[in-house]
Amino acid sequence: MEVKARAPGKIILAGEHAVVHGSTAVAAAIDLYTYVTLRLPLQSAENNDKLTLHLKDIGLEFSWSLARIKEAISYESRNLCRSTPASCSEETLKSIAILVEEQNIPEAKIWLSSGVSTFLWLYTSIIGFNPATVIITSELPYGSGLGSSAAFSVALTAALLTSSNPNKTRGDGWSSLDETNLELLNKWAFEGEKIIHGKPSGIDNTVSAYGNMIKFCSGEITRLQSNMPLRMLITNTRVGRNTKALVTGVSERAARHPNAMSSVFNAVDSISKELAAIIQSKDTISFTEKEESIKELMEMNQGLLQSMGVSHNSIETVIQTTTKHKLASKLTGAGGGGCVLTLLPTGTVADKVVEELKSSGFQCFTASIGGNGAQICV
Amino acid sequence: MEVKARAPGKIILAGEHAVVHGSTAVAAAIDLYTYVTLRLPLQSAENNDKLTLHLKDIGLEFSWSLARIKEAISYESRNLCRSTPASCSEETLKSIAILVEEQNIPEAKIWLSSGVSTFLWLYTSIIGFNPATVIITSELPYGSGLGSSAAFSVALTAALLTSSNPNKTRGDGWSSLDETNLELLNKWAFEGEKIIHGKPSGIDNTVSAYGNMIKFCSGEITRLQSNMPLRMLITNTRVGRNTKALVTGVSERAARHPNAMSSVFNAVDSISKELAAIIQSKDTISFTEKEESIKELMEMNQGLLQSMGVSHNSIETVIQTTTKHKLASKLTGAGGGGCVLTLLPTGTVADKVVEELKSSGFQCFTASIGGNGAQICV
Repeated sequence: MEVKARAPGKIILAGEHAVVHGSTAVAAAIDLYTYVTLRLPLQSAENNDKLTLHLKDIGLEFSWSLARIKEAISYESRNLCRSTPASCSEETLKSIAILVEEQNIPEAKIWLSSGVSTFLWLYTSIIGFNPATVIITSELPYGSGLGSSAAFSVALTAALLTSSNPNKTRGDGWSSLDETNLELLNKWAFEGEKIIHGKPSGIDNTVSAYGNMIKFCSGEITRLQSNMPLRMLITNTRVGRNTKALVTGVSERAARHPNAMSSVFNAVDSISKELAAIIQSKDTISFTEKEESIKELMEMNQGLLQSMGVSHNSIETVIQTTTKHKLASKLTGAGGGGCVLTLLPTGTVADKVVEELKSSGFQCFTASIGGNGAQICV
Repeated sequence: MEVKARAPGKIILAGEHAVVHGSTAVAAAIDLYTYVTLRLPLQSAENNDKLTLHLKDIGLEFSWSLARIKEAISYESRNLCRSTPASCSEETLKSIAILVEEQNIPEAKIWLSSGVSTFLWLYTSIIGFNPATVIITSELPYGSGLGSSAAFSVALTAALLTSSNPNKTRGDGWSSLDETNLELLNKWAFEGEKIIHGKPSGIDNTVSAYGNMIKFCSGEITRLQSNMPLRMLITNTRVGRNTKALVTGVSERAARHPNAMSSVFNAVDSISKELAAIIQSKDTISFTEKEESIKELMEMNQGLLQSMGVSHNSIETVIQTTTKHKLASKLTGAGGGGCVLTLLPTGTVADKVVEELKSSGFQCFTASIGGNGAQICV
């Protein structure tokens, strides 16, 4: 039996960093996906005592005998139930970490460890100790703020839940999950994210699971119904950054200049709310006008992010380049490098700007915003 | 008899644009001057029926016979009194404009016309119809937001008032004017500024007259006593801009996004107030700490100016270049080109960054901030 699942990455349209200080943020799914193929061998097949994880893009394969997994993870002590997502206990995480260490992940890819731990936790929690081969491919760059880890957790969980639910109806091509399954999926994916990120906001997995857009404020996530298609150019500066240090930097600046920074955060809050309203609006203002507003709000948000101190010369280079082509850009996510969004209004031909950006050493993607969430193909 | 006067240019340290919307701004004098030499010929000398204006840097000289001036400007209708500065009436301005037109200013320098009108108004109002040669030189680039027109009006007025006041004590070298004369000087210079700018804020002439720094909010100017020397690199992008269009652009953005923009203006207000407090502070926090704060506030202000939409690719290039050298910058004045300030903390050797900026085609000045106002040398 083979199940395929996919889940999208995300962008922060407005509100990153300020969200930590109580402002509203808006995030959206992008049509760049992580794909999971889950192959459950027949009872009679060879290799039916193994669990294999194949990270195809990276060219790495990890494999465990089920006996070794059973030995390492104290199955009995876990109150396993696929329908009630649970956090991975400290003790279990330690056992899983040993299983991961045994795979001798190359030093340069050591950041994969927590993702492999997430894999083992979600797999054994939902499927138990059954043999399988799980193949991962992704259109999302890793660690650049596009929610690749959440897309991985969501797509994996979607595949796992579908394979263990024989009642799931089967159709042609990609199909979405129903609300009940999405809720369950999202909760499990959040548990997976916790292993990777410690204290994730839940934004990334929620966007990846449900798709479309969300508004996020003070821990509360509201799903938005977008009424306009949006296309963005996503430029990966390839500059790595330390998200935690950037978040701390903003907090320290806020402590040093409380009045100014609280106004900055208020400005961002207004921008996010206005953006959410425009996106959901069904009223008569023209599509072009909406795009103009979004463009302006993105430019404003970028200025405010700069005043928080989280921009970077690589980001400014992208902005300068897109400005020359009369396009508005803002960093997305943590800043300090990472990815930059550029709105591509209807009819924009982005070839020239993309060429210029690539010649500066950047990686470019064109993506539609606010599309599908997790989907399966059985 | 020869009188020399000089008056400094200014920079806006914080608050440009937001000041139009009720925020506080801080401006400071810089040690780049406009110099005026006023030569009053002896009664017996030749050429004692002429008024000559020599703009030495530009290589232009304008000359009027006193008879022609008397004929054009209806002296009798003016209630002339050098001690009560008056506005140039519409009618007189028209007469002066004819005198200026007769000089056939080259098309490329036509922007000089209003400055020449100011000259004729201030000269005839303060000195009357007496022969003289007035020589102007300036260290300030024209029309780039460094207050060159105010420095011209202030220096000219200082020379005129001094020459017509025989009681003025004479000393060696440059000496400042007393408070009474400064007040009179500032009022006349403001009248001159009105001819050039229509509705000037009064910031430029006040800073140029009094020197040091000022705080400006809702039309009220407060003189500040700086307690720290500050050095700035001033980079002229040489990109001309339309100040009025930039101001209008910000107002339109504020009308489209009232909530966000009012928070942006509030943030700027807090920054200006904090900056003014640091500069005046006599308390024990170290000089380095003060410089660090100013650096951060400048970076924040620049982000906010960007969110108002008044930055420019040339400005961003300057910022990127100085950022590489770990220096903070902000545009000063109207933006959209013009000049950029870069704080040079104590001990900074700016040679390399200056070299890099010059190689990008920019013009660089190093200036001390908050120094002398108008001075005379008799």
